Amino acid sequence: MKRRHLLASAAVTLPSLAALGLLPGCAASMLRGTGDLGVVIGRANGTLYLVDTTAQALIGEVSGLGDLSHASVVFSRDGLFAYVFGRDGGLTQVNLLERRITRRVMQAGNSIGGAISADGSLVAAQNYTPGGVKIFDAHTLALVADVPAEYAPGKLSKVVGLVDLPGRRFAYSLFEGNAIWVIDCTDPARVGIQKFEGVGQQPYDALVTPDGRHYIAGLFGEDGLAMIDLWAAEPKVQRILSGYGKGQEALPVYKMPHLRGWAVAGRRAYLPAIGRHEVLVVDTDTWKEVGRIPVAGQPVFVMARPDGRQVWVNFSVPDYHRVQVIDTQTQTIVKTLEPGKAVLHMEFTPRGESVWISSRDDNRVSIIDTQTLATRARLDVPSPSGIFFTSRAARLGF
Amino acid sequence: MKRRHLLASAAVTLPSLAALGLLPGCAASMLRGTGDLGVVIGRANGTLYLVDTTAQALIGEVSGLGDLSHASVVFSRDGLFAYVFGRDGGLTQVNLLERRITRRVMQAGNSIGGAISADGSLVAAQNYTPGGVKIFDAHTLALVADVPAEYAPGKLSKVVGLVDLPGRRFAYSLFEGNAIWVIDCTDPARVGIQKFEGVGQQPYDALVTPDGRHYIAGLFGEDGLAMIDLWAAEPKVQRILSGYGKGQEALPVYKMPHLRGWAVAGRRAYLPAIGRHEVLVVDTDTWKEVGRIPVAGQPVFVMARPDGRQVWVNFSVPDYHRVQVIDTQTQTIVKTLEPGKAVLHMEFTPRGESVWISSRDDNRVSIIDTQTLATRARLDVPSPSGIFFTSRAARLGF
Repeated sequence: MKRRHLLASAAVTLPSLAALGLLPGCAASMLRGTGDLGVVIGRANGTLYLVDTTAQALIGEVSGLGDLSHASVVFSRDGLFAYVFGRDGGLTQVNLLERRITRRVMQAGNSIGGAISADGSLVAAQNYTPGGVKIFDAHTLALVADVPAEYAPGKLSKVVGLVDLPGRRFAYSLFEGNAIWVIDCTDPARVGIQKFEGVGQQPYDALVTPDGRHYIAGLFGEDGLAMIDLWAAEPKVQRILSGYGKGQEALPVYKMPHLRGWAVAGRRAYLPAIGRHEVLVVDTDTWKEVGRIPVAGQPVFVMARPDGRQVWVNFSVPDYHRVQVIDTQTQTIVKTLEPGKAVLHMEFTPRGESVWISSRDDNRVSIIDTQTLATRARLDVPSPSGIFFTSRAARLGF
Repeated sequence: MKRRHLLASAAVTLPSLAALGLLPGCAASMLRGTGDLGVVIGRANGTLYLVDTTAQALIGEVSGLGDLSHASVVFSRDGLFAYVFGRDGGLTQVNLLERRITRRVMQAGNSIGGAISADGSLVAAQNYTPGGVKIFDAHTLALVADVPAEYAPGKLSKVVGLVDLPGRRFAYSLFEGNAIWVIDCTDPARVGIQKFEGVGQQPYDALVTPDGRHYIAGLFGEDGLAMIDLWAAEPKVQRILSGYGKGQEALPVYKMPHLRGWAVAGRRAYLPAIGRHEVLVVDTDTWKEVGRIPVAGQPVFVMARPDGRQVWVNFSVPDYHRVQVIDTQTQTIVKTLEPGKAVLHMEFTPRGESVWISSRDDNRVSIIDTQTLATRARLDVPSPSGIFFTSRAARLGF
């Protein structure tokens, strides 16, 4: 099976190829840097596809990861290990150079993602069943702390919106608990918990801004968002964008947008409107809406190119074959792309020269030059969904 | 020689250690990720000291790099290769896993640093003698383009302030030419040059903001700075901070501050005042000064922790045993540290939990926890100067 279709030749030889085959007795695949590696989730077959963003190619696959229908991935700070959070509660540690599963635990009945501490020592999983957060030693996957989301006696809440914060801390939201908790795992044997209660009805997802300052949760049960300024001397919850969510009556909502995908570019944040064919523009000083940009469908991911000069948007059914590119200086759409059927995710290379886009129903990952907007290469991947590059290890809140 | 003094034990085992010794026939040192590697310049002996920021330890050394008295380093996008620009015009490619020099060329008589293109394919060196920029294939170090800085017939200018821009472009300043050039090396056989002339007297160093938008050059021959908005439809030079440099008469200037170290945190930039015991605070929208923070000496590097919550400052003679930490919310000094004699450089880990500080005259690198401000470890390194981590490969303008 020919996995790769090169659409443009690389004019200069690629550094990563230099490492191949230099040492007899050492598998060529292993003597290489990990800074340009990544994984693509094979949603249908429980397989992780390994990619090289310099060669723009598939370089291997690892199967046996269970149900990956809503999987997410974080990386060790050296870029050697991927930690894959499966929907079925599986937490799998994959060695990207050996291309094999090194450890795997079934840590919950139903899980929805996780995070890794800034120092790389702790992996945290957010669980629906049983509702709570479990903390693991990143090396051994030994459970080092279990924090049930018990918001009332005997009642556990689903946990959503888990993010890492500086200093072995994590923040997350309790869907039934209407709460946000910030935990400090400096000593995993004695986890400190700071609880913010009554934040609003049913927080369903959340994000932390790239500087780690503002934790923002979307509310399913009412309009607006709950925000905490974590740098404040006495952090407290405030409500922002009170109209956010008002679109729910106007149009059927095919898919709740991912907040994690929010773009923060310069002094503006770009948000998917719920149920509307619009991207909202918000001033990050006042947290007031300052504009709306009409787009081709209900936005799902609204993501900034690392330099903030462009924002890329994908859409829910029935417009999920399209991707639109917004120029943040003019606040207008500069291009509508159709990279394939059922676009599920996008991931920028660390310096933003390319974006990788998965088209599930075309079994394709497209690699697009963000300057020329030309397609550089296409990779054949069965039912691709999430795309994650090791450069995430160097970023907060990813 | 005991190289490492651990001041605090790591409570949890470290991921990078997991990779050691797994494969017979493959040197243990090579099967590992490169995301947490870095180098420390051994200024006095032409040696590169290799470090691991997870283990907080020295892991090797590579000698034979020539004159490293003002050396700087960039990395391949996979994190496998360091490119070391020596003062003597040497450009050395070091394989960090094999711990050896893989290629070395003497490319100029006197050189002052370089950059790598966003796609990792091209390495650019800025030279004093002969004045100009040379472009090399990052893999082979073959010369692919030579761009003399000929600002008048037969007259070559020293080149300073070279930075990478998106799309195989670079920007730099001509000291004698009073100019800024932006070159496009998409096709190295036909380099496009955009010249901005009369930018001001003797630009001596420059930087590009983290988003790649504003190129700013300091002027040795007059007050103020020259700035270009590279995102403008028709970029042009404007003068900002007209008082900048006025300090030159007030106090003897022991060392011109490095502009490359400028901190941009949120909407503010923090600049070293020239010849004054002050850090200037500038609004990055208006590029006007909005405040001054008194500090312990003439600042050299003024660097933001990656999240922008702190700014760290070191100083020139005679105050170069001190480092000060500014809280950007209160704009005040929260701590004065004395990590050793002759502090030359600082480097943050990618998510900012630690900062590494070189103290040349104490032959020491200190690793400091940026939350507690406690020293976590000290490494013995002969005459250390610049510290560079592979995570720079993922950042623009570094």
